[in-house]
Amino acid sequence: MFFEGSEKRVEVLVSPTTRSLRLLDEQFWSDVVACADAEVLSKMGNECCDAYLLSESCLFVWDDKFLMLTCGTTTLVDAVIFFVDKLGESAIASVSYQRKSEYLSHLQTSSFEEDLSRLRTKLSGSAYRVGHLDTHHHYIFTSDPQTQPLKVKSNSELLMYHIKGEVADYLRSDAQSCEGIRELLALEHLFPDFCFDDHLFTPFGYSINGLWEDKYMTIHITPQEQSSYVSIETNLHFELYPFNIFSALLNKLNPQSWDVIGFNRQVITDGFPPFVSVASCALPINNNETVQFNQYQQLNSELLQPELL
Amino acid sequence: MFFEGSEKRVEVLVSPTTRSLRLLDEQFWSDVVACADAEVLSKMGNECCDAYLLSESCLFVWDDKFLMLTCGTTTLVDAVIFFVDKLGESAIASVSYQRKSEYLSHLQTSSFEEDLSRLRTKLSGSAYRVGHLDTHHHYIFTSDPQTQPLKVKSNSELLMYHIKGEVADYLRSDAQSCEGIRELLALEHLFPDFCFDDHLFTPFGYSINGLWEDKYMTIHITPQEQSSYVSIETNLHFELYPFNIFSALLNKLNPQSWDVIGFNRQVITDGFPPFVSVASCALPINNNETVQFNQYQQLNSELLQPELL
Repeated sequence: MFFEGSEKRVEVLVSPTTRSLRLLDEQFWSDVVACADAEVLSKMGNECCDAYLLSESCLFVWDDKFLMLTCGTTTLVDAVIFFVDKLGESAIASVSYQRKSEYLSHLQTSSFEEDLSRLRTKLSGSAYRVGHLDTHHHYIFTSDPQTQPLKVKSNSELLMYHIKGEVADYLRSDAQSCEGIRELLALEHLFPDFCFDDHLFTPFGYSINGLWEDKYMTIHITPQEQSSYVSIETNLHFELYPFNIFSALLNKLNPQSWDVIGFNRQVITDGFPPFVSVASCALPINNNETVQFNQYQQLNSELLQPELL
Repeated sequence: MFFEGSEKRVEVLVSPTTRSLRLLDEQFWSDVVACADAEVLSKMGNECCDAYLLSESCLFVWDDKFLMLTCGTTTLVDAVIFFVDKLGESAIASVSYQRKSEYLSHLQTSSFEEDLSRLRTKLSGSAYRVGHLDTHHHYIFTSDPQTQPLKVKSNSELLMYHIKGEVADYLRSDAQSCEGIRELLALEHLFPDFCFDDHLFTPFGYSINGLWEDKYMTIHITPQEQSSYVSIETNLHFELYPFNIFSALLNKLNPQSWDVIGFNRQVITDGFPPFVSVASCALPINNNETVQFNQYQQLNSELLQPELL
């Protein structure tokens, strides 16, 4: 029943002279996805972005960049290498490649260090680990920027570990449906005006992509009892909203611990469930960017349930 | 510079009719240790116990039982299988085999599940994981008892992660010596009347065994900056002492987080540095035994230092 929910993530920005990535055909993106050992399940698009729902997570393609997340034992680094080889290194403005700590890292086909060696054969850049090896940690590689980017990228991620309560129980039940999950999580309320594309996996698991103008959101749910993990990522500036989207999801999913990562953005904790702030880091990258890492856990001491093996 | 400090641990009790384990010669124990891919560095003994200091941790041999801890990428399960094969399954009264979560589990030669499969070819028993996979967790296998043991085993372990401060700096310095470490940790004071045998490893690392009557203590220090780990284990009932040995070591070594495991014993937290109680579990085993697991971390939120890769 184990499934590694933790994602590998890549964001690639191309140079201003490169033709729109959205002109590359579906076969090209299917090939990119296949390199990561995943496949395209469905696609939607608007005037700014194409959003692909994958067998393992998602792919978003804008004119000048793409973002791809893959979980399980996928080989995202192979997709990155394939893309760089196809377009040529001179077409690449910047690459940001991330891995989060995995539940069972020994089942992965490569370590971050191995991915890093391969990326460095194509791109120069800096790599860091933030967080201790014995608990949540994040690896990030960012290529040296070829030109000063016109706009600073900005997005935030919420990673939730060990969800429990009514919504968690529903996500592990046979009764669940896409409509039911969207409703329980109140996604139409939290992301008004977004178009959605979602998928329920067998026996468990749920993915949803959302688009509104150039804004995206994506949620991936691995509800398995002993290794549950839910991630959400968006470039929506919800700090301007009358409600905190991350707080709303935290209160519904009730995770034991959670991490927040903000690229050039610090997520406010208003409305978070009662928490202990475990650790934090502001990591400066490439002079004009900062990645904020914050680790939280529930305030109450947890009574652990032993797992019989 | 990485070294896996986290130990595998086995405690084997033999049946009352089995002749004293201390009558088995040094070659036998060298063979047991070699099976785990370790070697004997030195030995001391008293009227109750022989204590071997190993290239990777320690081995204690009493008349009716032995206890062995090995760290790094050792293969302790092979030593257990060798011992059971040599003495015969009928000579085994009980086996308790433990693994703690490793910093880099993908570098290990086997997983706990693989060790478990091998143990179960020789012994029936129960196995549990306590603690989540994304943070500190402990695996334990205990064989079904062949007879009701005459005395309930009782010991406690303190596992410290990410030590810092003056003592930690000393343990990473060229100036350190065995005498210096014993003095800084005040071991003669904390363990009065104990005889000690200790060893300093190159470039870093320290192990000490201590004996007093049928009581043992053992400390293993892996001071490496990004993955420091210190463990202490003893069957001394220091709850009766005017000072708490674990508190004294916690205050000197100042770890970011620590776990306490008590076999049929609950360690009191008097004098611990200011902490958050993260999680706990009381695991009943074989009707008359209980293993207490407690996870703690420092009260203050940690400012993480990114590691450049």
